[in-house]
Amino acid sequence: MPVRRFAFGRTEDAVHPDSIRAALSEFVATAIFVFASAGSVLALDRMYKDTTTASGLLLVAIAHALSLFVAIAVSMNVSGGHVNPAITFGALLGGRISLIRALFYWVAQLLGAIVASLLLRLTTAGMRPIGFSVASGIGVWHAVLMEIVMTFGLMYTFYATSIDPKRGHLGTIAPLAIGFILGANILAGGPFEGASMNPARAFGPALVGWRWRNHWVYWLGPFVGAGLAGLIYEFMMIPEEIPTHQPLAPEDY
Amino acid sequence: MPVRRFAFGRTEDAVHPDSIRAALSEFVATAIFVFASAGSVLALDRMYKDTTTASGLLLVAIAHALSLFVAIAVSMNVSGGHVNPAITFGALLGGRISLIRALFYWVAQLLGAIVASLLLRLTTAGMRPIGFSVASGIGVWHAVLMEIVMTFGLMYTFYATSIDPKRGHLGTIAPLAIGFILGANILAGGPFEGASMNPARAFGPALVGWRWRNHWVYWLGPFVGAGLAGLIYEFMMIPEEIPTHQPLAPEDY
Amino acid sequence: MPVRRFAFGRTEDAVHPDSIRAALSEFVATAIFVFASAGSVLALDRMYKDTTTASGLLLVAIAHALSLFVAIAVSMNVSGGHVNPAITFGALLGGRISLIRALFYWVAQLLGAIVASLLLRLTTAGMRPIGFSVASGIGVWHAVLMEIVMTFGLMYTFYATSIDPKRGHLGTIAPLAIGFILGANILAGGPFEGASMNPARAFGPALVGWRWRNHWVYWLGPFVGAGLAGLIYEFMMIPEEIPTHQPLAPEDY
Amino acid sequence: MPVRRFAFGRTEDAVHPDSIRAALSEFVATAIFVFASAGSVLALDRMYKDTTTASGLLLVAIAHALSLFVAIAVSMNVSGGHVNPAITFGALLGGRISLIRALFYWVAQLLGAIVASLLLRLTTAGMRPIGFSVASGIGVWHAVLMEIVMTFGLMYTFYATSIDPKRGHLGTIAPLAIGFILGANILAGGPFEGASMNPARAFGPALVGWRWRNHWVYWLGPFVGAGLAGLIYEFMMIPEEIPTHQPLAPEDY
Repeated sequence: MPVRRFAFGRTEDAVHPDSIRAALSEFVATAIFVFASAGSVLALDRMYKDTTTASGLLLVAIAHALSLFVAIAVSMNVSGGHVNPAITFGALLGGRISLIRALFYWVAQLLGAIVASLLLRLTTAGMRPIGFSVASGIGVWHAVLMEIVMTFGLMYTFYATSIDPKRGHLGTIAPLAIGFILGANILAGGPFEGASMNPARAFGPALVGWRWRNHWVYWLGPFVGAGLAGLIYEFMMIPEEIPTHQPLAPEDY
Repeated sequence: MPVRRFAFGRTEDAVHPDSIRAALSEFVATAIFVFASAGSVLALDRMYKDTTTASGLLLVAIAHALSLFVAIAVSMNVSGGHVNPAITFGALLGGRISLIRALFYWVAQLLGAIVASLLLRLTTAGMRPIGFSVASGIGVWHAVLMEIVMTFGLMYTFYATSIDPKRGHLGTIAPLAIGFILGANILAGGPFEGASMNPARAFGPALVGWRWRNHWVYWLGPFVGAGLAGLIYEFMMIPEEIPTHQPLAPEDY
Repeated sequence: MPVRRFAFGRTEDAVHPDSIRAALSEFVATAIFVFASAGSVLALDRMYKDTTTASGLLLVAIAHALSLFVAIAVSMNVSGGHVNPAITFGALLGGRISLIRALFYWVAQLLGAIVASLLLRLTTAGMRPIGFSVASGIGVWHAVLMEIVMTFGLMYTFYATSIDPKRGHLGTIAPLAIGFILGANILAGGPFEGASMNPARAFGPALVGWRWRNHWVYWLGPFVGAGLAGLIYEFMMIPEEIPTHQPLAPEDY
Repeated sequence: MPVRRFAFGRTEDAVHPDSIRAALSEFVATAIFVFASAGSVLALDRMYKDTTTASGLLLVAIAHALSLFVAIAVSMNVSGGHVNPAITFGALLGGRISLIRALFYWVAQLLGAIVASLLLRLTTAGMRPIGFSVASGIGVWHAVLMEIVMTFGLMYTFYATSIDPKRGHLGTIAPLAIGFILGANILAGGPFEGASMNPARAFGPALVGWRWRNHWVYWLGPFVGAGLAGLIYEFMMIPEEIPTHQPLAPEDY
């Protein structure tokens, strides 16, 4: 796999203006996503205290789906549209991004989530952003497994619509599919453990709202799920003989 | 119709790596769809016991529409994006897929639905997945007819947006249209008989939740509806003179 | 305007196989649309008697938006994706379709709506499909004006995304835009007069459910609104000097 | 930046037929958007007095998202799909539109919003259109900041999907992304200060309904947010070396 190994070698790209632009793009896109998605939970909370109703869950799921679509659409051509440390991890394991670029992305994504959470706290006159928690009656390992399963679906969708060289020129389908799988999985998993699938989305509100209970669940689950999906898609679904796209160049995503 | 008859002759494709990838793709895509769609019914059930409210129906319909969109988007370029034994049956009757490939797809789709249902049972701390049932006051033959009508619409949509050689390069419209007709039909048929249109979606939760009442309705109706639509579209809507695409090669879907 | 006048001259196209396919396409597409959209009103009615709630209105609007998207997606490349006698009227006034083809389309659209309404009555164990009515406190001329305004928006959208030669190759945007403007207008006009914008959608349920009160409103309003939009778009928004696409050939839509 | 400065020089384009068509396109598109989006608030108001429920917020957010998608889709190829004085301001600061064209657009957008608000008042038998207001417990400067943050996201999305020369041929993604970020931000900010992000959307209903309390918030916030995003995207995200598209020619949007 010379093409894949080559991806790890281009470490000089961290100082290239494109890399700085890519990190900035991840920062802004993650902030846009976290502001609207975590904000929708605060909006619901302001209206009712009981947020576990069908229309409340629908509201939160749709806010996540729409804003993730937007975050990916605005960053797709610059940074590849990760907006999620677990996606970046899966792309790293699949050999589609260098470690140094992954580190840049992780910092940018976490900073974007923190800034969005601070802006939410400021603009709502001091409400504490709400992260994710495991519902009563659900064990933490149920929650970890659910995060693994759901993030596997998210990463598999990312690979199939953004990276797979067979996908053709699918500029619209990637953000739609990735936004929609997030929304659909929230409709399924929301009442059980919140359905994060994204450590940055979990971390920003946890830090600014200072709620850390079971926070590790929302790192371990997504990283395992996305890592598994990245490896499985890369080595089982992409035929060896088809020349893969040039990795790391943003316009290839 | 030499092109169509040729489709039945390429039985050697079952052992080709592309066929194994296609079956794997159907397996994962069906699992993604069933996990989110059947999961949304459990999520609703956890929040209220009465799931027949407008916002509950909307929640379930949107979860189905979004996750079917995703399932088709991720499998379209590998396996043609069936994710449904009835769609595979319609494509078989229309001469677009060989019998041996159809058998592979059916096994993969059912396995995907079973695995997703098992994962749902596991991650929700033991909830029994809920399949479909006929509402009180509605006869089973009303339900069969409704499944026929709705799956006819689903298969007609699949043919028009995924197979019809006049469709052009419509990479995004096919999964959108197929996901949306599922969602719209659930909004119409949900309170009457559940609105499955997909025997795999019905079978996985029925097996894992062990509820079999009127289960045959959700096989007979979809197969008849999809078969009718496949035959009608293939032989009435596609002009003879236009050279049809190469069947069976996944990139033609 | 030689290109536009030419459209009226190709009357022989009524006996061409493509014309029969186009009429069949309008028939099936309208039936798919009316089954899901009118069915969603029955589904809501089965669950509650009071259908004027926010989530009920949302349910009905989304069912209309999704199913109209599908109806246009499946018929766009065969018949131009009208699915609505008022759209056909606007295209006729704009010189984009011949009178004989318009007559074929009208018959096909009305038959599709009737068949869908009959199937709804049959599959719901005898429920009477519900058409549109003017709410209390709203005059019939308010309702006519609202239908004019909303159908103007629908037809303007149809023209801008399906016919305008400047639109480029926009295979997905046309059905999305047309479905979404229907959904958005229902969210605005639904509680006042139902928000039909489509005489076939109004006629099928009115006939099968036998409710004719103020039915004329849902013919007059849409025809005036669509006619105005067709004329204004054709003669004010499309520059003379740009060669227009070949009218009547379905692949040009 | 010779290409960018050139944009300010082509002032003669105000008298060109394309400019009149562009202004007309902005007028109609803004009217379509304001009619459905402001109309959805009236529809909700007619059904309940308390409009701050999860399903009510969802209804309003979806009406805005769908109708803004449509407004951009119908005007994108003629006027660039602004439909919003703040977007026009951001494009002006970024050097993508001349001042004279911006003035034309602002007049057209405000007139479109006024006409839509008048038509709403007329067709609803006299209901006063409802603009935006700051919720109790939220300071006006919180509201200004929230408008800045949310309109920054809207303008950044506009730039990334409509103007960025790296975006490729993304005919569908621009209206989807812009409509969706509006919807998502309403789901977050609606209960706090209404979430306008568009001075025309605020001005039309304020004028026709004659409610001016804190109206300045909905001009200052969007202009600052959109201006910042225009400058940041133009000068930080677009590489100098890539030849930018020809500004001002509508088909380049």
